[in-house]
Amino acid sequence: MKKILIINGPNLNLLGSREESIYGKRSFESFLPELKQIAAAKDADIQYFQSNHEGEIIDKIHSSMGNIENIILNPGALTHYSYSIHDAIIAAKIQVIEVHISNIFQRDDWRARSVISPAARGIISGFGLDGYKMALYYLLNM
Amino acid sequence: MKKILIINGPNLNLLGSREESIYGKRSFESFLPELKQIAAAKDADIQYFQSNHEGEIIDKIHSSMGNIENIILNPGALTHYSYSIHDAIIAAKIQVIEVHISNIFQRDDWRARSVISPAARGIISGFGLDGYKMALYYLLNM
Amino acid sequence: MKKILIINGPNLNLLGSREESIYGKRSFESFLPELKQIAAAKDADIQYFQSNHEGEIIDKIHSSMGNIENIILNPGALTHYSYSIHDAIIAAKIQVIEVHISNIFQRDDWRARSVISPAARGIISGFGLDGYKMALYYLLNM
Amino acid sequence: MKKILIINGPNLNLLGSREESIYGKRSFESFLPELKQIAAAKDADIQYFQSNHEGEIIDKIHSSMGNIENIILNPGALTHYSYSIHDAIIAAKIQVIEVHISNIFQRDDWRARSVISPAARGIISGFGLDGYKMALYYLLNM
Amino acid sequence: MKKILIINGPNLNLLGSREESIYGKRSFESFLPELKQIAAAKDADIQYFQSNHEGEIIDKIHSSMGNIENIILNPGALTHYSYSIHDAIIAAKIQVIEVHISNIFQRDDWRARSVISPAARGIISGFGLDGYKMALYYLLNM
Amino acid sequence: MKKILIINGPNLNLLGSREESIYGKRSFESFLPELKQIAAAKDADIQYFQSNHEGEIIDKIHSSMGNIENIILNPGALTHYSYSIHDAIIAAKIQVIEVHISNIFQRDDWRARSVISPAARGIISGFGLDGYKMALYYLLNM
Amino acid sequence: MKKILIINGPNLNLLGSREESIYGKRSFESFLPELKQIAAAKDADIQYFQSNHEGEIIDKIHSSMGNIENIILNPGALTHYSYSIHDAIIAAKIQVIEVHISNIFQRDDWRARSVISPAARGIISGFGLDGYKMALYYLLNM
Amino acid sequence: MKKILIINGPNLNLLGSREESIYGKRSFESFLPELKQIAAAKDADIQYFQSNHEGEIIDKIHSSMGNIENIILNPGALTHYSYSIHDAIIAAKIQVIEVHISNIFQRDDWRARSVISPAARGIISGFGLDGYKMALYYLLNM
Amino acid sequence: MKKILIINGPNLNLLGSREESIYGKRSFESFLPELKQIAAAKDADIQYFQSNHEGEIIDKIHSSMGNIENIILNPGALTHYSYSIHDAIIAAKIQVIEVHISNIFQRDDWRARSVISPAARGIISGFGLDGYKMALYYLLNM
Amino acid sequence: MKKILIINGPNLNLLGSREESIYGKRSFESFLPELKQIAAAKDADIQYFQSNHEGEIIDKIHSSMGNIENIILNPGALTHYSYSIHDAIIAAKIQVIEVHISNIFQRDDWRARSVISPAARGIISGFGLDGYKMALYYLLNM
Amino acid sequence: MKKILIINGPNLNLLGSREESIYGKRSFESFLPELKQIAAAKDADIQYFQSNHEGEIIDKIHSSMGNIENIILNPGALTHYSYSIHDAIIAAKIQVIEVHISNIFQRDDWRARSVISPAARGIISGFGLDGYKMALYYLLNM
Amino acid sequence: MKKILIINGPNLNLLGSREESIYGKRSFESFLPELKQIAAAKDADIQYFQSNHEGEIIDKIHSSMGNIENIILNPGALTHYSYSIHDAIIAAKIQVIEVHISNIFQRDDWRARSVISPAARGIISGFGLDGYKMALYYLLNM
Repeated sequence: MKKILIINGPNLNLLGSREESIYGKRSFESFLPELKQIAAAKDADIQYFQSNHEGEIIDKIHSSMGNIENIILNPGALTHYSYSIHDAIIAAKIQVIEVHISNIFQRDDWRARSVISPAARGIISGFGLDGYKMALYYLLNM
Repeated sequence: MKKILIINGPNLNLLGSREESIYGKRSFESFLPELKQIAAAKDADIQYFQSNHEGEIIDKIHSSMGNIENIILNPGALTHYSYSIHDAIIAAKIQVIEVHISNIFQRDDWRARSVISPAARGIISGFGLDGYKMALYYLLNM
Repeated sequence: MKKILIINGPNLNLLGSREESIYGKRSFESFLPELKQIAAAKDADIQYFQSNHEGEIIDKIHSSMGNIENIILNPGALTHYSYSIHDAIIAAKIQVIEVHISNIFQRDDWRARSVISPAARGIISGFGLDGYKMALYYLLNM
Repeated sequence: MKKILIINGPNLNLLGSREESIYGKRSFESFLPELKQIAAAKDADIQYFQSNHEGEIIDKIHSSMGNIENIILNPGALTHYSYSIHDAIIAAKIQVIEVHISNIFQRDDWRARSVISPAARGIISGFGLDGYKMALYYLLNM
Repeated sequence: MKKILIINGPNLNLLGSREESIYGKRSFESFLPELKQIAAAKDADIQYFQSNHEGEIIDKIHSSMGNIENIILNPGALTHYSYSIHDAIIAAKIQVIEVHISNIFQRDDWRARSVISPAARGIISGFGLDGYKMALYYLLNM
Repeated sequence: MKKILIINGPNLNLLGSREESIYGKRSFESFLPELKQIAAAKDADIQYFQSNHEGEIIDKIHSSMGNIENIILNPGALTHYSYSIHDAIIAAKIQVIEVHISNIFQRDDWRARSVISPAARGIISGFGLDGYKMALYYLLNM
Repeated sequence: MKKILIINGPNLNLLGSREESIYGKRSFESFLPELKQIAAAKDADIQYFQSNHEGEIIDKIHSSMGNIENIILNPGALTHYSYSIHDAIIAAKIQVIEVHISNIFQRDDWRARSVISPAARGIISGFGLDGYKMALYYLLNM
Repeated sequence: MKKILIINGPNLNLLGSREESIYGKRSFESFLPELKQIAAAKDADIQYFQSNHEGEIIDKIHSSMGNIENIILNPGALTHYSYSIHDAIIAAKIQVIEVHISNIFQRDDWRARSVISPAARGIISGFGLDGYKMALYYLLNM
Repeated sequence: MKKILIINGPNLNLLGSREESIYGKRSFESFLPELKQIAAAKDADIQYFQSNHEGEIIDKIHSSMGNIENIILNPGALTHYSYSIHDAIIAAKIQVIEVHISNIFQRDDWRARSVISPAARGIISGFGLDGYKMALYYLLNM
Repeated sequence: MKKILIINGPNLNLLGSREESIYGKRSFESFLPELKQIAAAKDADIQYFQSNHEGEIIDKIHSSMGNIENIILNPGALTHYSYSIHDAIIAAKIQVIEVHISNIFQRDDWRARSVISPAARGIISGFGLDGYKMALYYLLNM
Repeated sequence: MKKILIINGPNLNLLGSREESIYGKRSFESFLPELKQIAAAKDADIQYFQSNHEGEIIDKIHSSMGNIENIILNPGALTHYSYSIHDAIIAAKIQVIEVHISNIFQRDDWRARSVISPAARGIISGFGLDGYKMALYYLLNM
Repeated sequence: MKKILIINGPNLNLLGSREESIYGKRSFESFLPELKQIAAAKDADIQYFQSNHEGEIIDKIHSSMGNIENIILNPGALTHYSYSIHDAIIAAKIQVIEVHISNIFQRDDWRARSVISPAARGIISGFGLDGYKMALYYLLNM
């Protein structure tokens, strides 16, 4: 059975109530079952982890070594400065797909630069919550 | 019936023979039928256009107005300087998904910056040819 | 009889339907007769050329050598990177007036810099379609 | 009753012993009662939170949603790189007043740039501990 | 009757004697009657103001509020640093046309950047004194 | 009796009519009596000076030496380039509190940088006209 | 028999009439026979291609794959922004010698940077038309 | 008895399994006894602390005040953005020796800049795990 | 009789009381007679002008045309942004010697750049008030 | 008889043993006779000078004035900072051809910028030792 | 017997009399015997070379090839611009340890960047003369 | 008796024959007697040293310690990169006056920045050979 871990970074626990025009009206909790269902249909299991702490995200990546093959990671604003997460991904040798709900290239200058991307397998940005489904689609079918 | 146009920019006609370690061994021509089949299953039609000429790509975007709802665009190296394509997308009011075969954030500095992205709906980068399938998956299912 | 060539670059064929709040609701085709009439009154002839292809614009500038004294040029987004058009203007030794419909200094950062301007006689920006009339006024009366 | 939360970031627990020429000789603990007294006189309540952990500060901002109207925030050195706190403020929709004890524009170059400020209601910098009183004065009287 | 104010900034009182190869041999005083005549023919009135003092130019813009609809402004070298004039234009809500005698994009690097332009209706640069006529032509006929 | 001088720079004489969404609907003249009243209650006297001329502001700072202990300064757009005012503050050895009505860190890039701040005692930005009261509160009570 | 292709980019068709002080008085057409003669003496064949269209140059590079071993390329002003030609060279795996007639390091700042050079075998700049002979000398003798 | 604290930052818990070509094959745990032995021989005691959490590292530095004279700090990727650790070192007035296993000046651009170094006593970079021994040698013998 | 004009810019009227460690303890008024005496001995006349107003300095330069051959100019902090004075010098065609009391290359970054220097005959910086004597020495003897 | 001087800068005495993958396996000493033979065939004489000392290279250029018409110069790493050699070339009025063995535009960022090139007649880069032959070919035949 | 060469660059001959607060009161000559003694105890030999000439340092590195295994190099201010020494180290294939007496990251901006470091084995900075002992400790024991 | 040393850097031995429009027609050798005469009249002695070698200039500064009080230094193009000379001046504690014949702020961008100036007492630039007299005038009379 395939194991996939979804990690959401800072402030993504507020999805649904946070800047709805940008991030949409749906909470991640209400969305997660959909993802789990898609995964289950392909005999895969999804675990979910959200934290506003960079350190906990790094710990989580480390503890996944050996039992998780793939991570879907939305680092939130840590995207733009957490070289530590960048290094954690490389160190852990786990394939990571970086997902952003909004199109980070259409907003503030600083949002257009991800320090995580060079360590990621690929990047999906701008498709709303559907971006997670696309990542899943890739992991389950390709 | 949904109409989807795939546009590939400069040098993508050489896929399969071009820098195989980065772009893979498969030509786009041999890959296209797979995409068509996926689309057909959802009652959608795929048209394909490749050009090494910026002007032809702009002309194509213009001529799609009114009969195409969605474009999957891989602008090749035009990604990094063609403000004219950026403006064409905005002017044509067609939803565009930007796809890159390689992870453009892992290579030369200049590849990490797309002047097209601010005009795109979303960006998919780094998943090889599967990136086109992911774009299709989004357009057909979301 | 004075000969004046108007060259419009990429996406200006969409005037009237393109971002109306910025570029207005009028197509260039419906506007051109006004310009021709003004020119005719001063015994001058206007030719019009639009292309989305940088190469065609250069070819046009070249082929104008010897039979056109003045060009009114709106390079569209090529304004911001086409050093080749810059060089074509200098090489052809034709006086060029650079016109922009919008005020390019009020929008995206990259729009505020024209690589064409150093080769132009003068620049007119921000007056809508009337900018063409102002260029014409200059060429016919000064 | 009005509720005001004061959040102090990294190293501000050392006030009074830390670089006294810049930050003064008084600990925040000995200063807090003064603030509480001023608030009480206006029928307001002050809560205090200090942490050296970015994640805990974000958690605190989140948990204040719905029961706190105003935050006085001194982010310490997180001021200069924590886009995550920036986003937390915007996501939580709580009015935040950014306070700095020293004049951050008189010191190292990197201290002159706050990534938090664009998300704050206003900024007070350079007035020592009195800056907190000024923020309180604003919240209680304006 | 339409009222148009022309404001010339620092050193433009020396036109005719100043760097003739760049600015021409004609003083503005000898040129002004031509502009007045053109305006009179369209039932408009031209007022003229020149100052080497930034403050006086701002005062003049302020005092024009309510009795002047349009200003033709050549800010001289203040073009490149007077954010105060930029703000005065916005605050006064008067339409301003920015005129430069020389092509400011062909000279020193610092001349190519105007801090005034984002507040102006449009920009005319490089047509010598005729630039004023072009601005007038726009104001009287469009 | 304590003497406090308020200096407002360019365009602040238009408060109330200028960009109301940013600067509010109240003129400084109608606001000043409130400040005077607050000061009087603490046996302090407020003088007010506004000018659109950098030179006059410098002259005013100079002439205050010896009879004014504190200045509340809103330099308007001079904030961003008047190194001369910066030097005047240091030369005059008068304590200066820099006040901005809007949050200058939320607007144009150039507004986020004050060349005055390194010479000021402290900075207050973003609290509307209340910022002046906060400065006064500091000067009268601390 | 060795096959060598010479590609000249935008505006190089005007050699001889274009800025003679920089580019000399001789047209490329009158110069080409000399090159052909030199090549013939070494049993090599020279083909010549000039275009003002970036796309045509890319097409030409592609169509040379398999039948041309060496290209002498003067990209004209495309030198400074055509990442697409850069990629075409790498994709086609043909050895390219980059030639510039003038010394591009002695002129405008933007001319000193070639985006093509990292993909070229070597660069020859500043020797006038003789630069082509030097490239030929290398290809025929080394 | 001298007390020395070794602090290792994010991802250094993975030493030995992480990018072995850069960081070597040995875990820090297996290496620590060597350091302890060297210290013991000089009547010194070594404590060890590793965390992936910036906040915990700051807490640890704070809690060392008064009972630890020297810290050997390898901040991992926090080296490049943690101004908070920089400030913690200054605030705690403990001598800190910054150690990097790899030569940070030979790798990515962003690794070449440490925001910690200005607060450190000295820097040792590029000697593998031996860098810790060198720091110890300094602390025990100089 | 030779006529030399000395112009001092903003804040130089405070010499002697302003930052004595940098600018010395002597007022310019008490120093001027020395300069006059030196000039008189060479049959030259010195006029002195100080202003805190950029506009007045420009006016003064203009009014000197035709009756002053040489200006010794210390622009104060206007050195760093007054392109208008730069242009006034060029327009007036008067030889200008730029003098700075302190070594402007040893202080703040922004002080090291003079926008006036390209228009000056020469620059003297760092010799205290003696710099004026050196300028005079040059004008009277060379 | 034509006299040509070849100057090789720092570290070029190690050719053949130095980074063979970049600079090749041949020493310059073993290569020089080939160059001399080519020159002799055209009745020209080659002198050779190598030094690791910038000063000696400048001295050599100076002492060549009057008896050498052409220099082939490979400045080694001095290419990137020796403005003194740049000035020596201009001062000596000797034609200099700049040669680099490797393609300096394909390597470290700092290698892509030559401070010597603006003073050189032309540049040859990337052709290995053959670059010297190409320079010679130019000097002997053009 | 192990041979270690210590090279000190410009101005290090003045140690002991030069800026004592930064570099200490001890001359290198009086310190060298200590180093020699440490080396002798490990059956190693230390040679010492100091020069203010970049060229002599390069010559020394070259002449060490084949008979010296390790160099301890303090390049003095050449650290910041001598790409020639950088290249000499790589060309000579000798292991080099870069030592700086002061913490170069705490001083002028330009001192924080070493062009030598990418070619060095490791860097030791900020430990005073003890830095040489630490380098020696590494070479003799690791 | 006062001892003054004049040091001229690279290429200044060519004065009189080098770029006469910039540096004049007079050699320094023919000018030196004038300087000596002026010095002798004030009981001072002038020594002269010119070198194209950075190292020799540093050596000369060192050997002047203890017997020379003042140096007049024209570093030639070393001005723009020799941090080693900068450090030599500070280390030697000799007062240095930096002289440039041309106005270095009117020429190439790179000439406008001196890395020596922060270590100099003062700077004189743009007065031709008279700059040396002005430096002498300062040293003999102030």
